[in-house]
Amino acid sequence: MAQQDAAKRFRTVGDGTGMTSDHRYEQEELQLAFRNRGMPLEGLRYDVTPTGMHYLLTHFDIPDVDMSAWNLSIGGLVKKPVSLSLDEIMGLPKRTEVVTMECAGNGRALFLPRSVSQPWLLEAIGTSEWAGTPLKGVLEAAGVQDDAVEILFTGFDQGVQGDEVQYYQRSLTIEEATRDEVMLVYEMNGRPLEPQHGYPLRLVVPGWYGMTSVKWLESIEAVAEPFNGYQMHATYRYALTPEDPGDPVDIIRVRSLMAPPGIPDFLTRTRLMGPGAVTLTGRAWAGRNSISRVEVSSDGGVTWSDAQLGPQPPQFAWHKWTAEWSATPGQHTLMVRATDSQGNRQEVEPAWNIQGMGNNMAQAVDVIVEAS
Amino acid sequence: MAQQDAAKRFRTVGDGTGMTSDHRYEQEELQLAFRNRGMPLEGLRYDVTPTGMHYLLTHFDIPDVDMSAWNLSIGGLVKKPVSLSLDEIMGLPKRTEVVTMECAGNGRALFLPRSVSQPWLLEAIGTSEWAGTPLKGVLEAAGVQDDAVEILFTGFDQGVQGDEVQYYQRSLTIEEATRDEVMLVYEMNGRPLEPQHGYPLRLVVPGWYGMTSVKWLESIEAVAEPFNGYQMHATYRYALTPEDPGDPVDIIRVRSLMAPPGIPDFLTRTRLMGPGAVTLTGRAWAGRNSISRVEVSSDGGVTWSDAQLGPQPPQFAWHKWTAEWSATPGQHTLMVRATDSQGNRQEVEPAWNIQGMGNNMAQAVDVIVEAS
Repeated sequence: MAQQDAAKRFRTVGDGTGMTSDHRYEQEELQLAFRNRGMPLEGLRYDVTPTGMHYLLTHFDIPDVDMSAWNLSIGGLVKKPVSLSLDEIMGLPKRTEVVTMECAGNGRALFLPRSVSQPWLLEAIGTSEWAGTPLKGVLEAAGVQDDAVEILFTGFDQGVQGDEVQYYQRSLTIEEATRDEVMLVYEMNGRPLEPQHGYPLRLVVPGWYGMTSVKWLESIEAVAEPFNGYQMHATYRYALTPEDPGDPVDIIRVRSLMAPPGIPDFLTRTRLMGPGAVTLTGRAWAGRNSISRVEVSSDGGVTWSDAQLGPQPPQFAWHKWTAEWSATPGQHTLMVRATDSQGNRQEVEPAWNIQGMGNNMAQAVDVIVEAS
Repeated sequence: MAQQDAAKRFRTVGDGTGMTSDHRYEQEELQLAFRNRGMPLEGLRYDVTPTGMHYLLTHFDIPDVDMSAWNLSIGGLVKKPVSLSLDEIMGLPKRTEVVTMECAGNGRALFLPRSVSQPWLLEAIGTSEWAGTPLKGVLEAAGVQDDAVEILFTGFDQGVQGDEVQYYQRSLTIEEATRDEVMLVYEMNGRPLEPQHGYPLRLVVPGWYGMTSVKWLESIEAVAEPFNGYQMHATYRYALTPEDPGDPVDIIRVRSLMAPPGIPDFLTRTRLMGPGAVTLTGRAWAGRNSISRVEVSSDGGVTWSDAQLGPQPPQFAWHKWTAEWSATPGQHTLMVRATDSQGNRQEVEPAWNIQGMGNNMAQAVDVIVEAS
């Protein structure tokens, strides 16, 4: 252990356990919050999030990909290794999907104790119209061999995490990688990807939390063993103790969010509004499942009433909902919870885990209603 | 005073003084950090910041402007009050300017004691190609009367600050408002404004800190007295004591920033690199002044050497610089400071003020160089 400590190059943040029971934040966490942008919740009004409002998580730096040298290589256990230029990829069959994406760590900072990491509150979400070519076609052209069990995706983004120098890498089983909706994406909202969203090419895996949709793709490789790199074994796990390896994080859990009504106080973001009828509105989503019910509470979760669901959205996009509320003078805590087509429902209390993954606890919005 | 406290509707964050001597952050500050996005510093590589990487400060909510009803009204002390549609504004003479914008509160969280507010570190910057029509032409068409002393700009964004319900409003003297470069802007980087940057129309005042470039314009009014609203008298002041009204914040102070070299550690953002020759690079800017000198230190500010300035940029855009560094194994603190054409130079220690305004202290970047 002493040897391992000596090998640590970077100072420890907090008390060294990687956990804290404080709802105050270290400067390093703040620094991450400025790099890794949330979607302001009034952005829930848009079917498709404006590009610059979409959430963003970058583990390391946004790489400066040299396009004069860039080709996507598809290799490993394939019959015909190939190297494709961006023009060649754009010449393949095109598919467009509206996809709601969410960071697996969304809600991490609302756990207590909480992991010292990217301290997401509620805003690590966004919905884009992604366009590209199905990965399945590219893999078929290369001819994945029978002894391959996974497809490994490597990005250009390099850094240190857990004291390990690494390129960002994640894998998918062949079955998951060859689903129809999995795409190599070069367009977001009808435009080439901006650098921070993965230019020139990224993976988009609809229904999964965002860590799987590897940005700045450098290579794709068919491999004989399940990939066990840092971003697979050391993080993105539902672990309950330091010894527990935990289940891997995968599909997005059911969640709903409300666009806060009224107007905000600058610092606290508490809402102020007048009395009377108001239409509350927001969105709900559940990975590959559809939304079957959304409920709203105006008394902090004591009583709930059904919201109205809007038109059925595309399979992987968020579902609009509205709810009428008669606001009376006083302080209120509004809440919303969704239930998906498999009967999974958001809880008011979070399902705690060490890394702060998949926290889909019901949102609470404090509102002050004043007689006008 | 008791009456005033009773009138306060929103709870106080921190100890109630509005200041703290702690470099740990309240959840409310974190919440603001996720809404108000910084530009990751590797973005210094771009002459023009990709739209979704530009910094963003929104005092209240991003408004949902109803375009079926929108017209810009120009009124008050004018001979011919006018109301212009977006199409009419887009039909007026077009001007394009590449402008570096910075939030006046950039660096606030690096002061100690520090104001509890939007806790910017270094990233509240960005450079865009803004296009619109000169404000001067619109004011001339309306005919500002001789008894007007200022032009008042009102945005659609409404909220509470200092317990005062308000629309966001700022003013400029007639002299400042009629400078050639002041524009009513409807395009950012060749595209219509995204909602969060002021759609459909915003003011851009090149050379000034960002608070002056009012977004989501609702109206423009010529007024007989200097405007003394909340965003003029209560904030954006260089105040040294609670009693000191302080000078108003206006033109952007000289500043330089470095794109951190090497690769980052995920949590601390400390940089790791190998030994040998490396070209450090970044940008410098100084409001309306040009940059005359940039210096780099690799020993935490003990010794400095001149960086090379790139080609002269447009008047209001940042100036690229490079510096060669021979990295030797060990820990180093890199720093950079700029001097402008008026002889103003960044200091290593910040020029403290209560609200955390205009903190242009020299940046420090910690680097670990390891023998490969």
